[in-house]
Amino acid sequence: MSMMKAAVFIEPGRIELVDKPIPPVGPNDALVRITTTTICGTDVHILKGEYPVARGLTVGHEPVGIIEKLGSNVQGYQEGQRVIAGAICPSFSSYASQDGYPAQDGGCSCHGYKPMGGWRFGNSIDGTQAEYVLVPDAQGNLAPVPDGLSDEQVLMCPDIMSTGFAGAEAANIRIGDVVAVFAQGPIGLCATAGAKLRGASCIIVVDGVEQRLEIARKMGADITLNFNQVDVVAEILRLTGGRGVDASIEALGLQSTFENALRVLKPGGTLSSLGVYSSDLTIPLGAFHAGLGDNKIVTSLCPGGKERMRRLINVVASGRIDLSPLVTHEYALDDIVAAYDLFAHQRDGVLKVAIKPF
Amino acid sequence: MSMMKAAVFIEPGRIELVDKPIPPVGPNDALVRITTTTICGTDVHILKGEYPVARGLTVGHEPVGIIEKLGSNVQGYQEGQRVIAGAICPSFSSYASQDGYPAQDGGCSCHGYKPMGGWRFGNSIDGTQAEYVLVPDAQGNLAPVPDGLSDEQVLMCPDIMSTGFAGAEAANIRIGDVVAVFAQGPIGLCATAGAKLRGASCIIVVDGVEQRLEIARKMGADITLNFNQVDVVAEILRLTGGRGVDASIEALGLQSTFENALRVLKPGGTLSSLGVYSSDLTIPLGAFHAGLGDNKIVTSLCPGGKERMRRLINVVASGRIDLSPLVTHEYALDDIVAAYDLFAHQRDGVLKVAIKPF
Amino acid sequence: MSMMKAAVFIEPGRIELVDKPIPPVGPNDALVRITTTTICGTDVHILKGEYPVARGLTVGHEPVGIIEKLGSNVQGYQEGQRVIAGAICPSFSSYASQDGYPAQDGGCSCHGYKPMGGWRFGNSIDGTQAEYVLVPDAQGNLAPVPDGLSDEQVLMCPDIMSTGFAGAEAANIRIGDVVAVFAQGPIGLCATAGAKLRGASCIIVVDGVEQRLEIARKMGADITLNFNQVDVVAEILRLTGGRGVDASIEALGLQSTFENALRVLKPGGTLSSLGVYSSDLTIPLGAFHAGLGDNKIVTSLCPGGKERMRRLINVVASGRIDLSPLVTHEYALDDIVAAYDLFAHQRDGVLKVAIKPF
Amino acid sequence: MSMMKAAVFIEPGRIELVDKPIPPVGPNDALVRITTTTICGTDVHILKGEYPVARGLTVGHEPVGIIEKLGSNVQGYQEGQRVIAGAICPSFSSYASQDGYPAQDGGCSCHGYKPMGGWRFGNSIDGTQAEYVLVPDAQGNLAPVPDGLSDEQVLMCPDIMSTGFAGAEAANIRIGDVVAVFAQGPIGLCATAGAKLRGASCIIVVDGVEQRLEIARKMGADITLNFNQVDVVAEILRLTGGRGVDASIEALGLQSTFENALRVLKPGGTLSSLGVYSSDLTIPLGAFHAGLGDNKIVTSLCPGGKERMRRLINVVASGRIDLSPLVTHEYALDDIVAAYDLFAHQRDGVLKVAIKPF
Repeated sequence: MSMMKAAVFIEPGRIELVDKPIPPVGPNDALVRITTTTICGTDVHILKGEYPVARGLTVGHEPVGIIEKLGSNVQGYQEGQRVIAGAICPSFSSYASQDGYPAQDGGCSCHGYKPMGGWRFGNSIDGTQAEYVLVPDAQGNLAPVPDGLSDEQVLMCPDIMSTGFAGAEAANIRIGDVVAVFAQGPIGLCATAGAKLRGASCIIVVDGVEQRLEIARKMGADITLNFNQVDVVAEILRLTGGRGVDASIEALGLQSTFENALRVLKPGGTLSSLGVYSSDLTIPLGAFHAGLGDNKIVTSLCPGGKERMRRLINVVASGRIDLSPLVTHEYALDDIVAAYDLFAHQRDGVLKVAIKPF
Repeated sequence: MSMMKAAVFIEPGRIELVDKPIPPVGPNDALVRITTTTICGTDVHILKGEYPVARGLTVGHEPVGIIEKLGSNVQGYQEGQRVIAGAICPSFSSYASQDGYPAQDGGCSCHGYKPMGGWRFGNSIDGTQAEYVLVPDAQGNLAPVPDGLSDEQVLMCPDIMSTGFAGAEAANIRIGDVVAVFAQGPIGLCATAGAKLRGASCIIVVDGVEQRLEIARKMGADITLNFNQVDVVAEILRLTGGRGVDASIEALGLQSTFENALRVLKPGGTLSSLGVYSSDLTIPLGAFHAGLGDNKIVTSLCPGGKERMRRLINVVASGRIDLSPLVTHEYALDDIVAAYDLFAHQRDGVLKVAIKPF
Repeated sequence: MSMMKAAVFIEPGRIELVDKPIPPVGPNDALVRITTTTICGTDVHILKGEYPVARGLTVGHEPVGIIEKLGSNVQGYQEGQRVIAGAICPSFSSYASQDGYPAQDGGCSCHGYKPMGGWRFGNSIDGTQAEYVLVPDAQGNLAPVPDGLSDEQVLMCPDIMSTGFAGAEAANIRIGDVVAVFAQGPIGLCATAGAKLRGASCIIVVDGVEQRLEIARKMGADITLNFNQVDVVAEILRLTGGRGVDASIEALGLQSTFENALRVLKPGGTLSSLGVYSSDLTIPLGAFHAGLGDNKIVTSLCPGGKERMRRLINVVASGRIDLSPLVTHEYALDDIVAAYDLFAHQRDGVLKVAIKPF
Repeated sequence: MSMMKAAVFIEPGRIELVDKPIPPVGPNDALVRITTTTICGTDVHILKGEYPVARGLTVGHEPVGIIEKLGSNVQGYQEGQRVIAGAICPSFSSYASQDGYPAQDGGCSCHGYKPMGGWRFGNSIDGTQAEYVLVPDAQGNLAPVPDGLSDEQVLMCPDIMSTGFAGAEAANIRIGDVVAVFAQGPIGLCATAGAKLRGASCIIVVDGVEQRLEIARKMGADITLNFNQVDVVAEILRLTGGRGVDASIEALGLQSTFENALRVLKPGGTLSSLGVYSSDLTIPLGAFHAGLGDNKIVTSLCPGGKERMRRLINVVASGRIDLSPLVTHEYALDDIVAAYDLFAHQRDGVLKVAIKPF
């Protein structure tokens, strides 16, 4: 049996590189040799033990690579073809998928739904921070990458870009909308880019790091606010003449960003939430207009599947968006522990790290 | 100047019948002689001083009556015609209205929005618990009542029916959905009826009063749960095989009903909130799937306007719904203080009270 | 190799019962022993040679039966379980499916779409008018039938009910809408039932057969018009006070019904088309308001998949709809040629025929 | 009574400048002194007698100007303020408006709808090619213009930009869509810009004039096709790998463009039609997939109202779009007959003509 290197969760505080067998390929699977992957904020939660996964599980959920071997039922692809797959890899045959919620894929059981059930890489099955990854339900999840695009150009598609755009899509942005985006980490930056793609005429972004606010301008932000320097709620209300924004996007996962996103919203507006929260949330009565403001709060988990990936790749290929400024560092897989250390401590202006197994 | 009787807010704890001048009719107004009106839960909040209105304001927001006098610019109606108007009487020319949120009508200012701004009767202008009411922006708000329908048959259209149906509409119910409705007061009962009208195949309703659960069955409930007798969250999850409901409607305005409505929801499901809350709300982390469940929380204020009223009247006229079981008591306007006393204390199985000025 | 009886297309004008091998079961398939199936109008088009299929193909696309054998990858079902599958059996992993159009499933190719590609039974693979049928992509297509329901009660779910309801769903019906349905064959009757389920307050139906108009009343029609007796366009405009209907549903596939459906439509209204047309269509300039009427023309192919079937079965189980009046005749599979003769000539008041292989 | 100059329809073939009284200002009106207006293709239809209007009617429907006098009921504006109003000036109090179709405004009658009823300027009331225009229902229709923007920058908002964007909006474009736009006159160019604003990743445009295709590239077109040089249907299918486009926009009003827009559409795709047709249309059976392709054909009339105008002005102000290349010529109102002559014959590369009364 051939072996490969893989970054696995050992125990809280420890993700380490180990040797593991290369998995066998079932009829609906594809084995992909990873050429580039990355580390996500969620992986840091796993590292710290804040989000529990099985000990020994390979972590990571953002694959760019080459098809090494295709399952016997997977058609229309070739071994040797370069592909990505979404961070969320649903079985599209499930009840939840057919109901419109593939990311909440409940598998084949009568239950129908499993919260975040479509997120399998580095959660319920071995992930992508390894030399090889097994892509389940490959027929629905393998997305070919055109020759003209580099790994780095499509590295954000599986998660960051799909999630950020989903925040803009769920916000139901219309042409001419004013949109506020709270937090400009990688996902918030993609939400900013997504809001521009949907036709917002004014995008106001909030963060505390000037470097991120600068990149935000490149992604489409019209106005940048540093929460260390201004009362962002008061400032956004002032900028909108007291009207509030049509939509706000929360891209961090804190009570303060959630609450501010609600406070700046016009009656009738939509709060689109992308953050992963770690405690109960409070909805302030006044900002919620006592429940009578025709407001909406919507949450989105990263959409996956080959059609979603195809669309995101096309956006990159069209030049509508350039996410290369987000890849600030590169590490070999062998040095992934150092990469985690950099990323977890947000040192050196890191946004995203490219990990190269080979 | 002619005078009329009107129930006005005197001070917290006191709503009394007083004499007031019949108001002059501006070019865009209509003066309507009230033949039937009713008392709403919101009026009780006003009575108790929990929702502040100006002292001396005539209360009430559900008019059925006869056009006494039309403003010079109001066309297509006749004096003597029987009409209703919505509890929410927007100026449809406002920014908020044109943006799709007439109930959040901000008037003509540059502000654009005012939370609940479309609610004027008994809130920002004199209301309907009087012999006469002045309907503003009458061209957009007067809805003719066909001869074949009694006052009582259309008495719920202005508020209860429009609100309850809005809860079902905002829940985005699809054919075959399982829907849970929390609280079966008048609005919850109408939400139940609305869920049936939208094609839900199973409606589970929750209340603590058996009489209300009985009426709920007539409105379309398939399963009734008394929260005094069962753990409703556990029971709804059991009834749905662990799947949860597609949509839940909150029709009361308490933390417990809001929270339960979230706890029974499938990933991807919608919580449609109708209640008027009186304190901050807590979103439990687990029920919210940490923000990753593709869930939606939507709030609705009673839709108004003559087109909405026309549609609701048509539903009544078609026999699709019969809300007459909801009108449990009748009082003369002269006895409105007694009617408030009954309604505020929810005595004698009261659901809705018809008030007759003449 | 075991053999089975199957009704196959021989040549235009001839569908005959022949012996065929029972097919082998691949890893993603299920073999279902048919207990009840039926004949669809489309099958008559095939019989007449108007819709081409391969000679020797087993026809029929509406299966009710028992799982005889499950493929090795199909999970969560048991052999011996009673199931249905949709007339349209998409591979939910395709681009078209993930894009929201599973019925236009293009398979795994780079093409992405194939018009009607999800319709496989009796079109591109062997169908259901046989002792056994092989269900492809069984994980996404097998829908369990609860014990309490008869075969006849769920026999309409795979096609007629799913199609008719889709016509109502695509018409974007809102509470209080006036809806016209043109033609009250089995699909039109289900469209009528669907319009009622979505909250239409007035449903006007048109046909030339009084028996069908009578059944339409049971399905929810408020007003029935016999086109042999009245000018239906003039009458519908009269009934709506010149306003026109909010939505019209075409359920036959002729120029005349298509055109009338457009002529009765209000500006802003939606024409939802279900018919299978056999020649070019003409859009009259006036009825189309020269392209400036904010009108919509939408077409729908029968939605399939286990989640759709689950929902339809639940509607039946809830008692919201009873389609048993539609099954007017029963034949053994051995007598299917006679059944086709009756159905093709629409003799004896036939609506739908139950076919029993065993 | 003061007099003004106005371009009026005399008889087919003749639009001339005449003297007319400046109209009196009713309580809900505003009198606007026109500083810039333009000529639309529809005006040419009027000139030729192809679209009938009353003799003596002032033509034109695109106003930029200064409020000269406000009606007594119009609030929140000042005389002297610079404004625009939409080409479509609905009474937002009508049934059609409240139903979501203000452009099909039926006024106050029981009828409810009038096709194109919201188009009043130069159609049912005096228009904008004059020194002054009376804006009806001014409260809902006057849109202030910020100081920083020139007349020319907002001149397209009332009609061309609102219409073109509506074509993209109605096409239901999603991020990553491939969109084809047929005809690149002023409306088609704005549809191209609108498709880009909604997130299309590839916009293919078709015209026969190279100059227009060049401007199209500035508006966001990725691929331009000259129908004199290529078989556009075959080429678009080739460019999309046989898949077809997600949405196509028809922006001319001919059978050929309508038909081609359908022929290039994927199953499930939307044909968004903006053209004004002058004869019946034919839907080819094959391109329509016999009615089974899950396709949609939607038509849009230019959205009006102050909120729509506010949003369009904001898009201009944001720099997201620059329509100044569309204004190719300028004429004094005194020379409007010459301007019509140039525009009607499409000489000298004309796209849009600015008309200056003062």
